[in-house]
Amino acid sequence: MNYKVIYNIIGRILCVEAAFLVPAVAISTYYQETGAIRALWISIVAIACVGVLLLLPRPVKKDYYAREGYISVGLSWIIISLFGALPFYLSGEVPSYLDAVFETISGFTTTGASILENVEVMSRGLLYWRSFTHWLGGMGVLVFVLALHPMARGSGQSLHLLRAESPGPEVGKLVPKIHKSAKILYGIYIGLTLLQIVLLALGGMPLFDNVTTVFGTAGTGGFAVRADSMAGYSPYIQTVITIFMALFGVNFSVFYLFLSGHPRQALRSEEVRLYIGILAGATLLITLNILPHYANAGEALHHAAFQVSSIMTTTGFATTDFNLWPEFSKCILLLLMIVGACAGSTGGGIKVSRLLLLIKSMRMERKRILHPRSVSVISLDQKPISDETMRGVTLFMTAYFFTAALSFLIVSLDNMGLETSLSAVLACINNIGPGLDIVGPMGNYAAFSPLSKLVLCADMLLGRLEIIPLLMLFAPSAWTKGIRHKQKASGW
Amino acid sequence: MNYKVIYNIIGRILCVEAAFLVPAVAISTYYQETGAIRALWISIVAIACVGVLLLLPRPVKKDYYAREGYISVGLSWIIISLFGALPFYLSGEVPSYLDAVFETISGFTTTGASILENVEVMSRGLLYWRSFTHWLGGMGVLVFVLALHPMARGSGQSLHLLRAESPGPEVGKLVPKIHKSAKILYGIYIGLTLLQIVLLALGGMPLFDNVTTVFGTAGTGGFAVRADSMAGYSPYIQTVITIFMALFGVNFSVFYLFLSGHPRQALRSEEVRLYIGILAGATLLITLNILPHYANAGEALHHAAFQVSSIMTTTGFATTDFNLWPEFSKCILLLLMIVGACAGSTGGGIKVSRLLLLIKSMRMERKRILHPRSVSVISLDQKPISDETMRGVTLFMTAYFFTAALSFLIVSLDNMGLETSLSAVLACINNIGPGLDIVGPMGNYAAFSPLSKLVLCADMLLGRLEIIPLLMLFAPSAWTKGIRHKQKASGW
Repeated sequence: MNYKVIYNIIGRILCVEAAFLVPAVAISTYYQETGAIRALWISIVAIACVGVLLLLPRPVKKDYYAREGYISVGLSWIIISLFGALPFYLSGEVPSYLDAVFETISGFTTTGASILENVEVMSRGLLYWRSFTHWLGGMGVLVFVLALHPMARGSGQSLHLLRAESPGPEVGKLVPKIHKSAKILYGIYIGLTLLQIVLLALGGMPLFDNVTTVFGTAGTGGFAVRADSMAGYSPYIQTVITIFMALFGVNFSVFYLFLSGHPRQALRSEEVRLYIGILAGATLLITLNILPHYANAGEALHHAAFQVSSIMTTTGFATTDFNLWPEFSKCILLLLMIVGACAGSTGGGIKVSRLLLLIKSMRMERKRILHPRSVSVISLDQKPISDETMRGVTLFMTAYFFTAALSFLIVSLDNMGLETSLSAVLACINNIGPGLDIVGPMGNYAAFSPLSKLVLCADMLLGRLEIIPLLMLFAPSAWTKGIRHKQKASGW
Repeated sequence: MNYKVIYNIIGRILCVEAAFLVPAVAISTYYQETGAIRALWISIVAIACVGVLLLLPRPVKKDYYAREGYISVGLSWIIISLFGALPFYLSGEVPSYLDAVFETISGFTTTGASILENVEVMSRGLLYWRSFTHWLGGMGVLVFVLALHPMARGSGQSLHLLRAESPGPEVGKLVPKIHKSAKILYGIYIGLTLLQIVLLALGGMPLFDNVTTVFGTAGTGGFAVRADSMAGYSPYIQTVITIFMALFGVNFSVFYLFLSGHPRQALRSEEVRLYIGILAGATLLITLNILPHYANAGEALHHAAFQVSSIMTTTGFATTDFNLWPEFSKCILLLLMIVGACAGSTGGGIKVSRLLLLIKSMRMERKRILHPRSVSVISLDQKPISDETMRGVTLFMTAYFFTAALSFLIVSLDNMGLETSLSAVLACINNIGPGLDIVGPMGNYAAFSPLSKLVLCADMLLGRLEIIPLLMLFAPSAWTKGIRHKQKASGW
């Protein structure tokens, strides 16, 4: 194991984290929140010190392969969450450190599940930090570090990192150079973020609400600064958020194709087509189902579109309490929770492209039974999909269901009802946030036992990192010095 | 498509069905149930007539491959259910034909989900038939026909039928000759059935209750002749049933190994070991969890063991209302519902062997990531598993989850609560019978809408036949005359 490179990566990430805490201090200073300012400063100094210490050992130019990539990513995410929780805990605004960690993991993983019983009493500086974790976690902390400057070992090492942190069955390399890809991704991300801020400002949204809401939308996170989530804002603001949630759930390579002058190719993306189809279909079905609950069809459509966009992109904002909707609509939302957004977006879930690959492999197997000698290959966007990728999809799905089942079992010990337990696990593993019943959009996760909170923390991380990096972290054989082989840096 | 062979198979099955209705007439005569006698006679004549008509066209010795096998099996199961429902409907004891079909499908698929609100008012002859469908469906209707005498085309054709009807990822051929294998399977099945009848008789169980209960146990069905299922019988009787449910959930090839003098090989079966491990683990966990609900540990263990054995083997008998158990226990039962029994048993679910293969493939993929150049093969009981089989497992799992999700969506239109809807779908697709809440062990399926009942009927058939035969039935390309190829009769 190449420990020094791993130290180096984590050191860089902690320095970035410390730097990103500074704006929170500025906000707390503006609002004169003395407790928060003290807690933020202590946290910044502590995080920066540890970060610099980890940067001291010079990274040796030794082998760096997939397992180092997975382990760096797995460890980084755990460590930035443990440190990122400090301001909440030190300020006393979240009295339990476990709860503070839960809230921070929920932030970085863009889940948006909250243990806060009343978000409106929190200081502004901390609320800013809480929402900012969504923004940073959405596109990826390591991708950000890669965008800042390339790694010592260059493309090979960076690809392993990108692969381990990016969601979806295949790695999202836009251009041959990884750090250039990372720069493009963050460029598009910042562009869309600024555009949404402007559009919400035009709707008269207060600046603080505006920026925090945009962080939550961009990262498809879902932390809000008001207790009623997005219910209190104007229909214009809600509509802008609906559209931007859907946009941030699109595969970013499609935006890149558009911007680099290939709109036709972008529109041909099978994943995005299916994504839009599901969004539209689910909105239509829910609108028809909830029609009797609202004054007119327009209002029903408005709320249906918002909630579908919010749940499918795994954001988790709400304009209405969908707990009160008929069962059919709740069932659609539960299924959307599992599907999630596109690969290569900031959203969670199993991803539309995996769903697409599963459907295609089912069709192929059926064909194989009927015409045993025919040769067929699964392809996506006219490109053949390797067996390695398909095996990766199967591995992910299997690990996903095992994780969900085991988590469900442990969380059920809290006796909070099957609907609450099951939806809490699904809402965390798919990085959505609100579930049903007690953890519904107007509820929170405060009532769970510490054990359940730990399990749900693990689920959020497993969901965001798509299981494998954490699986590696806890595989003893990954840490021992076995026979090592050079590994092709291909997607799986 | 070789239609004449398909007619021939269905004709034989209908004749067998008519013959098996005769004992029900005898029972109704004994109990002087005039209405039932009339309904049974009309049904017998009608079924026999159709059966004989279908036997008239001489089957041409034409090609007969996997697709004919799947389609024969899919059609046969639908047709025997439509005809087997006649006695219930014609007697007026089940006023709706859809309900009668639901009950019959539930019987043949060994589900045990009932639309009867009060089973105790039914005539004895019909209750006998209802329970007998479990026994026949358990080991397989076509396997029975194969055991009677070999098919015209011999082994190739028979294997396709056996493969399409037998549960599990691989075909359960015990000896090279298929019809001999089918004879051995039915021999063991009849032996175990008789043994259980004797043991229950020793406990003083009334003969009618005895035989119908044994049918339900052997087929892992779960239809009872009393409203409180098995709660009213003595602890001795309940214990015998616990043990026999577990036995009928074992892969029958293991019994064959025992009987043919290979006990060591039998004990080495990885599937049976995992099956016993899960049974024991789940019983232990539930015993600890329900301890406060019962007078002493012995009683808690007794009920835990019965319910675990009943749910995991997908039988569905109950000695207590597990709806009232704490959530952790209910959650374990829900997960056991999905796992199900061993392949090659009479039980349903996804089967322990598929679970085992999924765990093994996960381990192999992890190894492949860590040691990319190492060569690894998945093996079960020291035998390597082909890629074809693994692809079959993936296809099954994918189709299973798609079916469950779609069914859940449609059933949720009835607004009966997510717990009821979800557990009803799982209880039907896994051929268990009772679910939770409204469809719990002391409840029934009467309240669902006709649409939901149809969906649940489809789920029961899809679960019993493991999806593929019915998938073929509704694949337009399976019926058209395309390019045909000879197919190797290997398991997948």
